[in-house]
Amino acid sequence: MEHPSYNYKMTIAYDGTQYNGWQVQPNTPRTIQAVLLSTLKTVLRQDVILIGAGRTDTGVHALGQIAHFKINRVLDLYRILASLNGVLPYDIRIQGIELADPSFHSQYSAKGKTYHYHLCLQRFQNPFRRLYSHHVLSRIDIPLLRDAAHQFLGTRDFTSFANEAHSGACAKDAVRTIRRLDVVKEEEGVRLEFEGDGFLYKMVRNITGTLLEVAARKRRIEDIPALFNAKDRRQAGMAAPPHGLFLVEVHY
Amino acid sequence: MEHPSYNYKMTIAYDGTQYNGWQVQPNTPRTIQAVLLSTLKTVLRQDVILIGAGRTDTGVHALGQIAHFKINRVLDLYRILASLNGVLPYDIRIQGIELADPSFHSQYSAKGKTYHYHLCLQRFQNPFRRLYSHHVLSRIDIPLLRDAAHQFLGTRDFTSFANEAHSGACAKDAVRTIRRLDVVKEEEGVRLEFEGDGFLYKMVRNITGTLLEVAARKRRIEDIPALFNAKDRRQAGMAAPPHGLFLVEVHY
Repeated sequence: MEHPSYNYKMTIAYDGTQYNGWQVQPNTPRTIQAVLLSTLKTVLRQDVILIGAGRTDTGVHALGQIAHFKINRVLDLYRILASLNGVLPYDIRIQGIELADPSFHSQYSAKGKTYHYHLCLQRFQNPFRRLYSHHVLSRIDIPLLRDAAHQFLGTRDFTSFANEAHSGACAKDAVRTIRRLDVVKEEEGVRLEFEGDGFLYKMVRNITGTLLEVAARKRRIEDIPALFNAKDRRQAGMAAPPHGLFLVEVHY
Repeated sequence: MEHPSYNYKMTIAYDGTQYNGWQVQPNTPRTIQAVLLSTLKTVLRQDVILIGAGRTDTGVHALGQIAHFKINRVLDLYRILASLNGVLPYDIRIQGIELADPSFHSQYSAKGKTYHYHLCLQRFQNPFRRLYSHHVLSRIDIPLLRDAAHQFLGTRDFTSFANEAHSGACAKDAVRTIRRLDVVKEEEGVRLEFEGDGFLYKMVRNITGTLLEVAARKRRIEDIPALFNAKDRRQAGMAAPPHGLFLVEVHY
């Protein structure tokens, strides 16, 4: 029996609107991973194991999701890429496929990720942005949003900003480093650019929701340190909705 | 009986993906005009006549469609705008409403229109552009596209580039002036910016389709003058698909 010996890395963009997130789930055919797996099987004529850099939730989008699979033969990458995109629905596109080092692992080799969260701050939302940006109805103080964002920088215990996944989060696991959290103006509002070594379950959306409460003066900026200290998810703000969130890049 | 004496002008943006075009049609509830009319009736509690600057086809989008209606009372525009957008589906947004001169007519007062046609020229299309840009699979020569576009400028008989509407087009009606037809680079390809005094039925899409055939070297640029002279729609290129087309602005 031959061992799978070629390791392929794919860069994937998808519009998450129509999907129940990345991860394969029982009785849920519409996940990104499930559609990719069935497409790979059609094109490669064999089953593979596909591992993504991170799970995105229902409705979350990706510009640069990374996934890898191993197979025991050399692929003609130019043709395979065209075949995969020919079979995939138009809301999922593989942007590139390359032969990676045998040790490369999309999840474990990742040194960090960049997420963008788009906020529409206009009175009425551009209909072309309705699926890709969160329309904020409160009046937002942008300098205050920026000041509050700075309080999330650095290496911290983010327990208060992480939802429990399946098994429950333990405190040791909740320490993460946010290297950058910029508030960047764009045509219809701002986007929050998060860059960090890793993000806990719903962490970007929970931080965004908390920042919005501060910037709308529904929560005091002075209370943010106490939120970290509480290590209690219930004390922080509501999760911002999924459709404003994009996984932009995975860093290796 | 009071006469309707206040004339209101609305600026409307819509994502045409889910609609059978602008114009009310029998047995077709999903048109932009039909949805606006029923929304106006709900909010104003009376029927109005709504006249748009121009009809857009099934799947065509608008950033700045203009429509007007008359009513015999003064409206609180700030509140009416919020109410209308509160009732409308998210893929139609009224960007503004204002009291216009009694003589203003969205269609007859128009001095010109601007349309943009977006072309994706990458090997694989960004999934977020799939509904808003035409993915061109042929190799396109951009300088040649620009040269060909210049041949459409000025006052010409566009019979060869107009589909017959309901009653058939007559030659005298087919003279139009294109003041500007620019090829502008954008992130994933180019957009064609059309500005003219008026456009015949499917004229922008027919010109775009013809330009693409020239730029893909499937038709000679030298043959464009003969196309105009033929005054025969069948000799020009195929209509480009609707989803790349945006009505951007109506000029008064």
